Amino acid sequence: MSHDLREGETALPFDPAETATGPRVTFIGRIRSPWQPGDAPRNVSRARETGCEYARIELEPAYIPGLTGLEAGRQIILLYWTDRGRRDLILQRPSHLDGPRGTFVLRSPVRPNPIAMATVRITGLDTNNGIVEIDAIDCYDNTPLLDIKPWIRAVDAPHLPD
Amino acid sequence: MSHDLREGETALPFDPAETATGPRVTFIGRIRSPWQPGDAPRNVSRARETGCEYARIELEPAYIPGLTGLEAGRQIILLYWTDRGRRDLILQRPSHLDGPRGTFVLRSPVRPNPIAMATVRITGLDTNNGIVEIDAIDCYDNTPLLDIKPWIRAVDAPHLPD
Repeated sequence: MSHDLREGETALPFDPAETATGPRVTFIGRIRSPWQPGDAPRNVSRARETGCEYARIELEPAYIPGLTGLEAGRQIILLYWTDRGRRDLILQRPSHLDGPRGTFVLRSPVRPNPIAMATVRITGLDTNNGIVEIDAIDCYDNTPLLDIKPWIRAVDAPHLPD
Repeated sequence: MSHDLREGETALPFDPAETATGPRVTFIGRIRSPWQPGDAPRNVSRARETGCEYARIELEPAYIPGLTGLEAGRQIILLYWTDRGRRDLILQRPSHLDGPRGTFVLRSPVRPNPIAMATVRITGLDTNNGIVEIDAIDCYDNTPLLDIKPWIRAVDAPHLPD
């Protein structure tokens, strides 16, 4: 696959979308949102600011028992596969920055493994049907979901040196 | 593959390790740690408490330019593939809990997509050789690395309702 580069951008000498040899992920469900390519907010905080509250997870039936013990009000981390972007950029120049940055310094959905994440709050639960309503999300409608994790301070909050 | 279950545990009717049809991940490097199966701490906080400071990332050469702009002292999120565990448990009973919980309520490395994550601090950088030293990590030595992301408050910190 051939792609354009902006000035200062650098591509890998291979495209992980074609050459990756690691294990396959499985999509456990989809994220539903109001966003389509062209109108998605830049991150989950911006999504909250829009006031648009349509944001939910629809789990595949086999995975529904995995919700056992989840509760509304809880903070969770979603991992999702941003499947519309390329995977071969290692230096990028997002339009809101003045110059190129390494992919691992950015939260761009364009990365070797296009796994995005956001911390969100559960606002409603329908465990019979595998629906988890959340306070906001930044991704396109129908983005594939990889994982749901409870947010845990000891693991997820920055730890400052003594 | 056949696996044992503890009382109260439930497996999926299929094993994602064999049936997953999603895209393949690519391993961008390895996490080096002092831990082997049997002696790994339960999470990154416990790892810090051991006082053991050997924890680093070794990137594959092609991905090294992706570090451009990273700095020591910065908080980053690591995503890593916990490749030693099964992927088919949807209700689990970890030994430190009194009963079974859904996989998505746990941080167990056993999950449909065995992607673990921790927020860590960069303590040293050798960008020529793709080495990122970090303050601690909980995974086994040589665990495959999927991604490095900058920790960003607006995306990663819990957001409480007004």
